[in-house]
Amino acid sequence: MQTIKPRTMSGFLELLPREQKVFNEMKEKVESVLRLHGLACLDTPVLELSEVLLAKAGGETEKQIFRLVKGDTDMTMRFDLTVPLAKFVALNKNELSFPFRRYQIGKVYRGERPQKGRLREFYQCDADIIGDGELPIEADAEVIAILSGIYSALGVEADILVSNRKVLIGLLNELDLSEKQTDVLNLLDKYEKMGKEACFSEVEALAGEKTSEIFNVFEMKTLEELKSANIQNESFKEGIEELERVFELLKVMGVENAKLNLNIIRGLDYYTGTVFEGRLKEFPAISIGGGGRYENLTGYFSSSKMPGVGFGMGLTRLFVLLKELGKLNFSKDNYSKLAIIPIGDTENFCFTLASKLRAEGIACEVLYSKSFKARMNMANKTGVPNIIVVGEDEVNSGIFGVKNMATGETVKVTADKIKDIL
Amino acid sequence: MQTIKPRTMSGFLELLPREQKVFNEMKEKVESVLRLHGLACLDTPVLELSEVLLAKAGGETEKQIFRLVKGDTDMTMRFDLTVPLAKFVALNKNELSFPFRRYQIGKVYRGERPQKGRLREFYQCDADIIGDGELPIEADAEVIAILSGIYSALGVEADILVSNRKVLIGLLNELDLSEKQTDVLNLLDKYEKMGKEACFSEVEALAGEKTSEIFNVFEMKTLEELKSANIQNESFKEGIEELERVFELLKVMGVENAKLNLNIIRGLDYYTGTVFEGRLKEFPAISIGGGGRYENLTGYFSSSKMPGVGFGMGLTRLFVLLKELGKLNFSKDNYSKLAIIPIGDTENFCFTLASKLRAEGIACEVLYSKSFKARMNMANKTGVPNIIVVGEDEVNSGIFGVKNMATGETVKVTADKIKDIL
Repeated sequence: MQTIKPRTMSGFLELLPREQKVFNEMKEKVESVLRLHGLACLDTPVLELSEVLLAKAGGETEKQIFRLVKGDTDMTMRFDLTVPLAKFVALNKNELSFPFRRYQIGKVYRGERPQKGRLREFYQCDADIIGDGELPIEADAEVIAILSGIYSALGVEADILVSNRKVLIGLLNELDLSEKQTDVLNLLDKYEKMGKEACFSEVEALAGEKTSEIFNVFEMKTLEELKSANIQNESFKEGIEELERVFELLKVMGVENAKLNLNIIRGLDYYTGTVFEGRLKEFPAISIGGGGRYENLTGYFSSSKMPGVGFGMGLTRLFVLLKELGKLNFSKDNYSKLAIIPIGDTENFCFTLASKLRAEGIACEVLYSKSFKARMNMANKTGVPNIIVVGEDEVNSGIFGVKNMATGETVKVTADKIKDIL
Repeated sequence: MQTIKPRTMSGFLELLPREQKVFNEMKEKVESVLRLHGLACLDTPVLELSEVLLAKAGGETEKQIFRLVKGDTDMTMRFDLTVPLAKFVALNKNELSFPFRRYQIGKVYRGERPQKGRLREFYQCDADIIGDGELPIEADAEVIAILSGIYSALGVEADILVSNRKVLIGLLNELDLSEKQTDVLNLLDKYEKMGKEACFSEVEALAGEKTSEIFNVFEMKTLEELKSANIQNESFKEGIEELERVFELLKVMGVENAKLNLNIIRGLDYYTGTVFEGRLKEFPAISIGGGGRYENLTGYFSSSKMPGVGFGMGLTRLFVLLKELGKLNFSKDNYSKLAIIPIGDTENFCFTLASKLRAEGIACEVLYSKSFKARMNMANKTGVPNIIVVGEDEVNSGIFGVKNMATGETVKVTADKIKDIL
């Protein structure tokens, strides 16, 4: 028979079992933090009507999507989890309690040109809190605390840099630069990448002699400095007040890795208040999740005003990054703690033993390849941490030698004690 | 602004938070059983090259898919998890240990015409064991035991009806009906739906006077009866031997709900040996998962022979079914065990308390809607099982009243004892 070459498309990560296991554990740790904070879980469809998903999309997004038409239905694979959330909230507003706190972890699709390192399918994790009409500032602190909790749970050392867009917007208003606000903010957003000198001179081309004043505030590192700048603009003062309350709340929540940093602007004009971004301590240029406060989630779907605050985090990207940095330990193909290896005519006994151990919550497997050698090879290759070889002696005596595959040490116990030594 | 009507396509199930929570719990129970059995987890892409996914597809499948072309790449959304498994095994054979035992739970897509009750996106759960060249019969018993374990974990009362296709194939060979084998099996496959009389007469049109002999064996209920039928055909005898060993293994594994039933044929000529199907005890006509043994998983992708045995189970379908039968309890929007409700100026204290409780593993949330009334409404609406109202008295005394929302009972404890009474 003519066979077809098996292959997986580039940009679509397909992990081997022992990698997948580590990825799953990572995802479960993230999820456990979100659940500890009492967020509801959503699982919206991967495929939606194009009209709905592209409600607010510009030309760039349209190029980067997977879109298909079947019959007279024009559909698109979701490219983020925010538009589906907006749709969901607009659709189900009467069924929800507000502030509505939800997370979603799911695959999203970007139809980018295949190239090394670009993911076209990846897990996105979003957490958002949505208000009906208004949303207290507590929500801003809460989502930052959740992101911080996720980093802790993953053992990732990261800082969360926090700013509030009202501060710079207020500053630019104060300096009578409100018409150039977007252009200046876009340049300041690139401050870290461009370096100070280049950034300064490009801003100068727009703001002239006011540039020094902009950079004076932009580079301040504490709320005290910002307050002593004595700027009377309302937006500026509101931004400072919000930052003060957010940092106060983060302190009582025990969050220690959040730091004021006005360099955080986060591109999109989508955000209107608090903005924040997680950065690896070891590689501070690398962003590993971020978000902020927005005025209105559901504007494209409803006339209600629904402000929100949230973050997004690329789980697959983070996994790839941590793998490249050598921070992950791939040693086991599956969740088994124990392989039971029959030798001689003890197979039935082994299956019964395995069932009993599973009833005690122990993940285990019986190896039944034809030869004993193949069974031992299997145990070695899959990385199972413990084995028991069961022959007639073990069946008759009821004493089993549990061998730790890492240390080589064997402990002899009765069946009911196996649980205790795993 | 012109708004777009928010909507979700028919056939795409989008659950409300409290439904989603129950679905998640169901999925997690299924997954825990698969992990207890030491299966590896795969997570293949949703989108694959059409050439790969449609390697073995006929015209019917092609009509029922979501396919899209972008640039010069022709892609299809997966319609099952079997073809992706075949691709994965063929692609990664050298990295895997055999027998390769894997599960995958993921969404699959069927481009069917939208109509009530038809799902176009649903969660499929597959478990398979794949051999390299050969696969011992133990694997057949193991996958049935796993399916049985899943039903137990879900609290679903179900029987697993087990047959072996070699038995009926052997019988038809013995009766010199091998040329009409496919047609006769297709009719027998519809026995339950057609009823005996109609089925008998249609088989009679093909098999004439041999029909009584076919039905005589087809309706046998025990292995003893089958053995006493004294049929010498090798396939028939092999089928009986395999069934005997499978039932022997199921017995030592403690599986009590597996039952011999030759009516189980399972359409596809894909299966070659053991076949089985789970049926709700209360509604025995409803199939809730099934599978069997196949000769070769990877035939379309490789020249190696890789026999396998496994089952598939539609998790979304099962959820919908259990919901319709009123077997599910939807009471909570999220995973919180406790809502902490500040009254007066105690909010900071509440956030600190919440952080401490989360560190002890207690899922909880602080309610911070503007009014106290709104906070109480929120607690009632989300179905959180316990609340604490924290005012100055509680802060000063360090004694908190934990109110159980179901019983209305309040227990007063110090902060470090809250955990014990939740």
